[in-house]
Amino acid sequence: MTYLRTVFAVLTLGFTFTFGGMAIADPLPSWNDGKSKQSIMDFVSKVTEKGSPDFVAIPERIATFDNDGNLWAEQPMYFQLFFAADRVKALAPQHPEWKTEEPFASLLKGDVSGVLAGGMKSVGEIIMASHAGMTTEEFEAIVTDWVANARHPVTRRPYTQMVYQPMLELLAYLRANDFKTFIVSGGGIEFMRPWTESVYGIPPEQVIGSSIKTQFQMIGGKPVLTRLPEVNFVDDKEGKPVGINSHIGRRPIFASGNSDGDLQMLQYTAAGDGPSLMLYLHHTDAEREWAYDRNSSIGKLDKGLDEAQEKGWTIVDMKQDWKVIFPSKKK
Amino acid sequence: MTYLRTVFAVLTLGFTFTFGGMAIADPLPSWNDGKSKQSIMDFVSKVTEKGSPDFVAIPERIATFDNDGNLWAEQPMYFQLFFAADRVKALAPQHPEWKTEEPFASLLKGDVSGVLAGGMKSVGEIIMASHAGMTTEEFEAIVTDWVANARHPVTRRPYTQMVYQPMLELLAYLRANDFKTFIVSGGGIEFMRPWTESVYGIPPEQVIGSSIKTQFQMIGGKPVLTRLPEVNFVDDKEGKPVGINSHIGRRPIFASGNSDGDLQMLQYTAAGDGPSLMLYLHHTDAEREWAYDRNSSIGKLDKGLDEAQEKGWTIVDMKQDWKVIFPSKKK
Repeated sequence: MTYLRTVFAVLTLGFTFTFGGMAIADPLPSWNDGKSKQSIMDFVSKVTEKGSPDFVAIPERIATFDNDGNLWAEQPMYFQLFFAADRVKALAPQHPEWKTEEPFASLLKGDVSGVLAGGMKSVGEIIMASHAGMTTEEFEAIVTDWVANARHPVTRRPYTQMVYQPMLELLAYLRANDFKTFIVSGGGIEFMRPWTESVYGIPPEQVIGSSIKTQFQMIGGKPVLTRLPEVNFVDDKEGKPVGINSHIGRRPIFASGNSDGDLQMLQYTAAGDGPSLMLYLHHTDAEREWAYDRNSSIGKLDKGLDEAQEKGWTIVDMKQDWKVIFPSKKK
Repeated sequence: MTYLRTVFAVLTLGFTFTFGGMAIADPLPSWNDGKSKQSIMDFVSKVTEKGSPDFVAIPERIATFDNDGNLWAEQPMYFQLFFAADRVKALAPQHPEWKTEEPFASLLKGDVSGVLAGGMKSVGEIIMASHAGMTTEEFEAIVTDWVANARHPVTRRPYTQMVYQPMLELLAYLRANDFKTFIVSGGGIEFMRPWTESVYGIPPEQVIGSSIKTQFQMIGGKPVLTRLPEVNFVDDKEGKPVGINSHIGRRPIFASGNSDGDLQMLQYTAAGDGPSLMLYLHHTDAEREWAYDRNSSIGKLDKGLDEAQEKGWTIVDMKQDWKVIFPSKKK
């Protein structure tokens, strides 16, 4: 009831006239009333209300969000892998050897299980073949073009319209309360940056992700950064607090994830001295999205679910807590 | 004259009353009038004036600053090395072997030339011995304490009062014009972050620097990041554009440095499609600070000076262009 209390306080302080005839807008209209929404709003109230014992100064209001399965969907496969597959197909004419070489041969035949038979090694080969060997500017142009034109195989929506409407509202609500919002994702940092500002309102300098190495080179008198086929940093599991420390240099007070890959980020957030909110998004809606947790090969949530229950973290039940999943289709 | 033109435009637009009786404040009062100051103010005017052909949208107004010798002094030795030496002295009782082992034996005797005889290998050993083997929080506390209490061997000032007053004004002026200011330094990222916000107004998430590796660990049920004696990233020379791309993900339009270690950052900035300003600070004032350039072992400026002259970049002559060097002493 903190939100109503705030409204009440504002009204009784004599500011009524500013609200004359105006309804107080719900900052999270796509969230059903319930424990999850309440815990978020209570937290924001207590860290932002002047005089609150839990007040947090603005520069320390750091909020970190996983991306895949947390801000946008991740089924039936991480979207970046669809991008990689499309790139391999586009590059295939220049690589006749891929017709017989695995994992490319399986990928070009559309045989996903053949690709996955090679495990992480195969996925790594596909990522390097599709993400390295060009400048950072060229890669940005490739991603921008793909994001504008590719469609999700099930919904036929552009991938950037498979973002979660309630999470867009949560990001905006936190920013309206002077939080700085960051993405901390296992996905590729340069795969996300070209579109996170327009889609999420998160600028490139607030995106943290996995990366391959880049090298400064002078090519034809022009300085460029060339993308090398070599892993630089894996921003997943134990890597997430490391990435947060490297890029932000402060501990978040709000962290939001959906899989065991986010557990260390949530633990690190919970270990701060002041107030903190740890949010796990639980995919429970097989009708409107996908339902999966402990046994999923994509976005597995098992240890994280146990720890969240044990420690009383906020668990968002997509089916119960969200009025809508995706934004209304653009006209 | 762009600044006066702006003032004139404001006055003639009918806003005279807002300035009634007010003098228009000079945003760079410690800079002498001249080419350097003018080139900075002209640049800021043209990228911020609506309708200007060189207008740059606010999110793209990225400015990057080297730290050592550019925002604070770096003579007679990088300040971080004084920190490292003080740490080695403090840790010496726990390391009796350092009495005979180089480079520690020389360092403990105050024999700097003995230390430097070991070259970068010796410096690396001193850095690892003094910067690794604790958590990130412990290291932050050590740096905070040192910065509060250590004094520069020549001026006896705290190191954070050996920052350049004209550069503090430049940082503030850019931010007042909606630039986002970043540090991009060869110095240690976690050595700078504890004090850059209070001293420069630059928050930790806008500090880029060299780093050692950190590891996420659970110690006594508490998640910590432990600092390992292993180089993670060297943010110098070719590393600076790499660090900028990794942390910011946008190309700066304004870059400021003072040594050959900044040359690639300035080249990368100059290679953008739109307007850009490249600033080299030339240490020419042997009386008020130090005079050094092409032959200095600290902050060598040789190739950069040639390229700046050849390409017409802005070269700040400390002796000519700056009314004062350091801020007035605090009472």
